[in-house]
Amino acid sequence: MRYNRVTEEIVQRLVDIVGPGNVVTDPEKLEVYAGDEVPESEWKHLPEVVVKPENTGQVSEIIKLANRELVPVTPRGAGTGLAAGAVPMLGGIVLSLENMNRILEVDRENLFMVVEPGVTTGEVQKRAQEEGYFYAGDPCSADSSFIGGNVATNAGGNKAVKYGTTSRHIYGLELVLPTGEITTLGGKCVKDVTGYDLIHLMVGSEGTLGVVTKIYLKLLPRPLHNAVLLVPFAGMQAAIDIVPKIMTNGGIIPTSIEFMDKLCIKSAENYLNRSLPYGDAGAYIIIEVEAYTESQLEADYETIGNICLENGGLEVFVGDNKSSQEKIWKSRRYLAEALRVTSPVYCMEDIVVPVSNIPKVLAEIEKIARKYEIKIPCFGHAGDGNIHATLLKEDMDEATWHDKKEKVLEEMYSVTYAHGGKLSGEHGIGAKRKRAMAKFMDPVQLKMIAAIKKALDPNLILNPDKLVNVQ
Amino acid sequence: MRYNRVTEEIVQRLVDIVGPGNVVTDPEKLEVYAGDEVPESEWKHLPEVVVKPENTGQVSEIIKLANRELVPVTPRGAGTGLAAGAVPMLGGIVLSLENMNRILEVDRENLFMVVEPGVTTGEVQKRAQEEGYFYAGDPCSADSSFIGGNVATNAGGNKAVKYGTTSRHIYGLELVLPTGEITTLGGKCVKDVTGYDLIHLMVGSEGTLGVVTKIYLKLLPRPLHNAVLLVPFAGMQAAIDIVPKIMTNGGIIPTSIEFMDKLCIKSAENYLNRSLPYGDAGAYIIIEVEAYTESQLEADYETIGNICLENGGLEVFVGDNKSSQEKIWKSRRYLAEALRVTSPVYCMEDIVVPVSNIPKVLAEIEKIARKYEIKIPCFGHAGDGNIHATLLKEDMDEATWHDKKEKVLEEMYSVTYAHGGKLSGEHGIGAKRKRAMAKFMDPVQLKMIAAIKKALDPNLILNPDKLVNVQ
Repeated sequence: MRYNRVTEEIVQRLVDIVGPGNVVTDPEKLEVYAGDEVPESEWKHLPEVVVKPENTGQVSEIIKLANRELVPVTPRGAGTGLAAGAVPMLGGIVLSLENMNRILEVDRENLFMVVEPGVTTGEVQKRAQEEGYFYAGDPCSADSSFIGGNVATNAGGNKAVKYGTTSRHIYGLELVLPTGEITTLGGKCVKDVTGYDLIHLMVGSEGTLGVVTKIYLKLLPRPLHNAVLLVPFAGMQAAIDIVPKIMTNGGIIPTSIEFMDKLCIKSAENYLNRSLPYGDAGAYIIIEVEAYTESQLEADYETIGNICLENGGLEVFVGDNKSSQEKIWKSRRYLAEALRVTSPVYCMEDIVVPVSNIPKVLAEIEKIARKYEIKIPCFGHAGDGNIHATLLKEDMDEATWHDKKEKVLEEMYSVTYAHGGKLSGEHGIGAKRKRAMAKFMDPVQLKMIAAIKKALDPNLILNPDKLVNVQ
Repeated sequence: MRYNRVTEEIVQRLVDIVGPGNVVTDPEKLEVYAGDEVPESEWKHLPEVVVKPENTGQVSEIIKLANRELVPVTPRGAGTGLAAGAVPMLGGIVLSLENMNRILEVDRENLFMVVEPGVTTGEVQKRAQEEGYFYAGDPCSADSSFIGGNVATNAGGNKAVKYGTTSRHIYGLELVLPTGEITTLGGKCVKDVTGYDLIHLMVGSEGTLGVVTKIYLKLLPRPLHNAVLLVPFAGMQAAIDIVPKIMTNGGIIPTSIEFMDKLCIKSAENYLNRSLPYGDAGAYIIIEVEAYTESQLEADYETIGNICLENGGLEVFVGDNKSSQEKIWKSRRYLAEALRVTSPVYCMEDIVVPVSNIPKVLAEIEKIARKYEIKIPCFGHAGDGNIHATLLKEDMDEATWHDKKEKVLEEMYSVTYAHGGKLSGEHGIGAKRKRAMAKFMDPVQLKMIAAIKKALDPNLILNPDKLVNVQ
């Protein structure tokens, strides 16, 4: 065996490092740290101990100890992940960053915010707004997810079309390496080619290469005006075709371009208990635009509205105030919950394809769903080609569900790769998609990832058994 | 010795791979491949052979051969680098990508252009424009540099303030690894968290980790209107203070915000042989704004102009047509040449600091210049904190120049790091700054870079002896 168990002595040493109040061994309390938001029981595993450091020095001490004693360490943010990335599948230590939750600095001269990893993304957004700025990272889980988790997964979300994913906003990281060494990559320079781009190697590495303890986030001018458009289409092809048209004919990069399929529209209607406009439409597109001036905003949404109407949009509903916008967004925002009500056990996927291939891939998924007699509502980020195909268990028995799920995922991933796609656009691989990754990723790249992991974490201490197999 | 010489037999095998017309051994012809645009002779070195593959398969064969025979391979684009990154300091094979110069595809549905590495950046921009799109990467060397070199160095340039550096536009790379294996990272998905972000590890790695053979570039809507503003300021502090004001008070991210110091203004006047407006100013700021509509453009440049005038701008000259814009840009664009005329031997640096520290660092550089009695005109990208401090040899003798340069660089880099800065914002490390890197970079990061290099290139075949020392 590569790893050792957490002994009484190790627990005592952890207590010495962080104090008794920050070490959890009570089995009932450990339960909270056994899973993330993946609902299936196979992706839960109890840690042997949870430790909650309060500063970088403590993180370093913990990791040095674990590296010496050969005990696995699983870093954890808010536990809102969707790939079992923060689940301690091999037991060992869960290193929870919940106590490192301070906003350290707002730098008005250089437009940066420096934060610890345990601040929620919503707090970052709120603070930026209070100071007159804008933090553009915006995963759908912003209210609960930690910014450190956003960094670990390179979280996407609704605003990635215009502003990119989390990685675009990160210019510096203080981190603790698997050896326990502390270093700061980057900082407040907005350009930097001094050596390899280690920052963006860390972003999205799911806590397998280092524990981020301080984050330098770029702030932007705050867009003062926004509008939300809901556009029903008869079918998915016309709906998706609108994406490049808005960008090239309209010259506009909207903040969001979201889509929902027929099944999702119906689920939203059921959940919200009201009929939605054009509830029988083949697809909904939701578009958000932001601008610094009102005149620019109006020009933009009129241009977009016209392009939609000229290209198959059945009608354009404009939300130009908070309440009408909220009404439009509701159908999309509550979708995950709406599906959960329909089927408490489900499997939410995160495939990503070139935008123009969304309709083809959705049509293939529909075929797979019919073949296996399973419901797979699809929604997601049309502007990014990111499809949250969600397999519903409903009233299947456990064995049938497990069997069907495996077969459906296999076929769905094959279709995705055949259309130039990838396993995950924003949720990550974690433990959940590790087997699929071994199957679908080019072996050359699997080898590259394993080689980098091994080079930076020779004892494979940090979040082991995630992403790829390393010997 | 780690490496072997290129034997007759190896040359013959190279001929077998690419054909006799694509192998250069004639010493006179090799001369062309001995250096880049760093003018000093210490950064020149003759290759033993130059090979010019025409496709990815040939690149792979060449690298497999070199890896087997333990011969170093230095990949080379157009040779317009400014850090001796493509100079074969250890001899061996120069792998020139000049024959892989095709634009392979313009994808209008997904807004991508797929190109080979030997296409000039200017051709990419031109083709994008012809098709109604915009490629936002724009190093000052666009007319001559290859897009592959832009990728290898993560080239910056004048438009990085708004659009980011080259790395932001790259979504896929076909590459040949140091083992000769071929793989394609990413592609046309605009989001992807399937494994580590290997794409951005490759971008800016200066040809030390792989040879890029195909590049997926993102296209954007073409901004239809632009304006250029020239604003003289009495001193540098007021000039630089304008940067965050434009972004936060104005809510505008301009395309470019460039600066020139007093010495540069004088050099430009001498070179252009005409007096410039406010030629005695302490600093020039040049701002370019782009917009999709004319009304938005006018609103933007008026806002910026007013902010400048309210904050120490002596006057605002607006270039709103091609000829007036060209006139403004001329003073900045020809600066490198103007300095070269003043002093054919010079040392152009590329330090980068947080924007707000530009004035402090420039003041320190002025002190260093006085101390060593050397002229160091400074210009660069104010919006990015990127300072091209340029040491002029003028009529110093060789020994004095060498001695002074070493001391000045040492002090300049110290000042840079003391102000949160880094060695290079866009030119890279190459051979030229390798010693400085060993001295100024956190040893933990040097170790990380070496470990990754060794993991992916165990025989240290690819562009060896650049960036960091690896054992």
